[in-house]
Amino acid sequence: MTTPPPAQAGMPLADVDTPALLIEMDAFERNLDTMARGIAAAGVRLRPHAKTHKCAPIVRRQMTLGAVGACCQKVSEAEALVQAGVPDVLVSNQVVGGRKIARLTSMASEAKVGVCVDDAHNVAEIGAAADGAGVSIDVLVEIDVGMSRCGVAPGEEALTLARQVAATAGLRFAGLQAYHGLAQHIRSHAERRAATDAAIDLTRSTVDLLGRQGIPCEIVAGAGTGTWEFEAASGVYNELQAGSYVFMDADYAQNLDATGAPVATFEQALFIYSTVVSSPVPERAVVDAGLKALSAESGAPEVADIESARVAGVSDEHTTIDLSNSNARLAVGDGVKLIPSHCDPTANLHDWYVCVRNDRVESLWPVVARGCIW
Amino acid sequence: MTTPPPAQAGMPLADVDTPALLIEMDAFERNLDTMARGIAAAGVRLRPHAKTHKCAPIVRRQMTLGAVGACCQKVSEAEALVQAGVPDVLVSNQVVGGRKIARLTSMASEAKVGVCVDDAHNVAEIGAAADGAGVSIDVLVEIDVGMSRCGVAPGEEALTLARQVAATAGLRFAGLQAYHGLAQHIRSHAERRAATDAAIDLTRSTVDLLGRQGIPCEIVAGAGTGTWEFEAASGVYNELQAGSYVFMDADYAQNLDATGAPVATFEQALFIYSTVVSSPVPERAVVDAGLKALSAESGAPEVADIESARVAGVSDEHTTIDLSNSNARLAVGDGVKLIPSHCDPTANLHDWYVCVRNDRVESLWPVVARGCIW
Repeated sequence: MTTPPPAQAGMPLADVDTPALLIEMDAFERNLDTMARGIAAAGVRLRPHAKTHKCAPIVRRQMTLGAVGACCQKVSEAEALVQAGVPDVLVSNQVVGGRKIARLTSMASEAKVGVCVDDAHNVAEIGAAADGAGVSIDVLVEIDVGMSRCGVAPGEEALTLARQVAATAGLRFAGLQAYHGLAQHIRSHAERRAATDAAIDLTRSTVDLLGRQGIPCEIVAGAGTGTWEFEAASGVYNELQAGSYVFMDADYAQNLDATGAPVATFEQALFIYSTVVSSPVPERAVVDAGLKALSAESGAPEVADIESARVAGVSDEHTTIDLSNSNARLAVGDGVKLIPSHCDPTANLHDWYVCVRNDRVESLWPVVARGCIW
Repeated sequence: MTTPPPAQAGMPLADVDTPALLIEMDAFERNLDTMARGIAAAGVRLRPHAKTHKCAPIVRRQMTLGAVGACCQKVSEAEALVQAGVPDVLVSNQVVGGRKIARLTSMASEAKVGVCVDDAHNVAEIGAAADGAGVSIDVLVEIDVGMSRCGVAPGEEALTLARQVAATAGLRFAGLQAYHGLAQHIRSHAERRAATDAAIDLTRSTVDLLGRQGIPCEIVAGAGTGTWEFEAASGVYNELQAGSYVFMDADYAQNLDATGAPVATFEQALFIYSTVVSSPVPERAVVDAGLKALSAESGAPEVADIESARVAGVSDEHTTIDLSNSNARLAVGDGVKLIPSHCDPTANLHDWYVCVRNDRVESLWPVVARGCIW
């Protein structure tokens, strides 16, 4: 059920079968460089999130530029990357149930493996499995720093769980996971900073509490593409987990900087290449990419490179483009690049990246962990 | 990159690995029977849409109950089903570009193949390819009956294109495609009926016009799960294309009948089975299914079987359940069934259906056309 690649290396972009998931390599490489320089300047580590791209060649490029490994969200995602040669993975999520825990500990004989916890029984289960398998798992205690999702409360609850981890054979207490997902998408710079500062304060006080009790946090992990500069400068976080910066999307492009302008640190590098399949009237063009080619829960995609083109609707297999306010006209057969609103679930819809430079296909990369949600 | 099945036949539901795409077989079979009886009573044909399920065993069950074949939206989707033995497919969509047209005509030596058109140049291209390959393709002229997406205008434009099709070697003019997608999701029964009646009027006048010009419409196709009863009773439409009725979803469940109550013709048969991976406070449970396991552009999923449980958020890999107003409590490891808001793009995220009856896995069906978007 793996689909064949929609292109061949060397092909002009215009010949790529559609819809296709494009990486514009120049922008992509600039994004990787920009983050690597920012991380180096801040003196912290980068463990970029692979849930964004699910692709081993991208992890390798990130690690060549200094990343210490990859974050994954699922054991299956980590397995796919480890099988493709990634040597160090953190499942930045809870891993629950005997079968998944057995796969996690099995993977630890192939690679350095870490996991997050927020439940005492779960800690005991992972410890028993790791000890039984004769491996050691790095464990981060997840604290809730404002997202109201997973994670124990900062402070005493975190201390209690950290003590349990530190006392459990097969486990190594490695530090804290303190990710504030909601803060990533706050548009106002001041409000985004305030939400992140609150998370930083909670994290700092928990790190300090554990330190006073003789439990040092080697790793203090979190941050995303929307807030990473704040955590990088915090003096508390030392391992950042941003993922979307490699691609960007229409949602992140709405975040504002301190001057009120869109944050321009990273460039849009991910596109859905589509073909006009219908243009019944001159001001309307319908392309062949819909909800099965791009994820629209964060809003409709945007049209790249066509001024004043507006997306009028997205359905299962179509995106309808309204050209009423544009001088551009599109004919059946024309290629159109769409900017997805949310890069992570969009990439997960595809089996292949078509890597493009100067309108020519440079290479094809498999989305090796596509569908690895278990 | 095909993922392994998350279950084995005979297993209890509680042992299914999560997240998993479940079909509750009793409800599913009742849905198939209900539609088959409604269609038979109306004296029309059913060509159900396979873009909903992308699964050959489901097409076979539909055809056993009287369906004349399947609709697909993409050539690749049709290819996957034809390779799995489906003998009659209509691509209810425009097929554009030499490579896709070549695959369409090639498929016509394996199965009965139809396609929709709304562009004169496209008609000529498909005709040349079909004639060159020595095959005949059934062609429906698509008319826009209210959706403002694809399709020529009803009336004279349709007549002009129908004449071209009828005069093109390799093509057989088979009739009209007249689908009103927007009408499917209008909540009010009266407004949904009015929108559909307007579509029926436009379709009838076009059928009459073509008939007067000696171009009979053997097939008048359209309708969906929201409006099928109106088209079935119209005396104009004779081939209905509903798809979602096999599964249903939280969006369709909001459509109202003439009394103002939710339409109860079909039952929810599709679920995402998930596991609680975190419950940091008693009134909150976080499960392991997010945007990569269910499509949320039509809204958050709903929680099945737990009264007053409310979905507080959906992110890439998590759905957060708020139990503040519920007496139920969930523990880490518990199984939870979610009702997706939109069945078609949700099914496309998975490689396997886990078919369940009485909380036991009965069989596993491949989502054979998963990812077939080209």
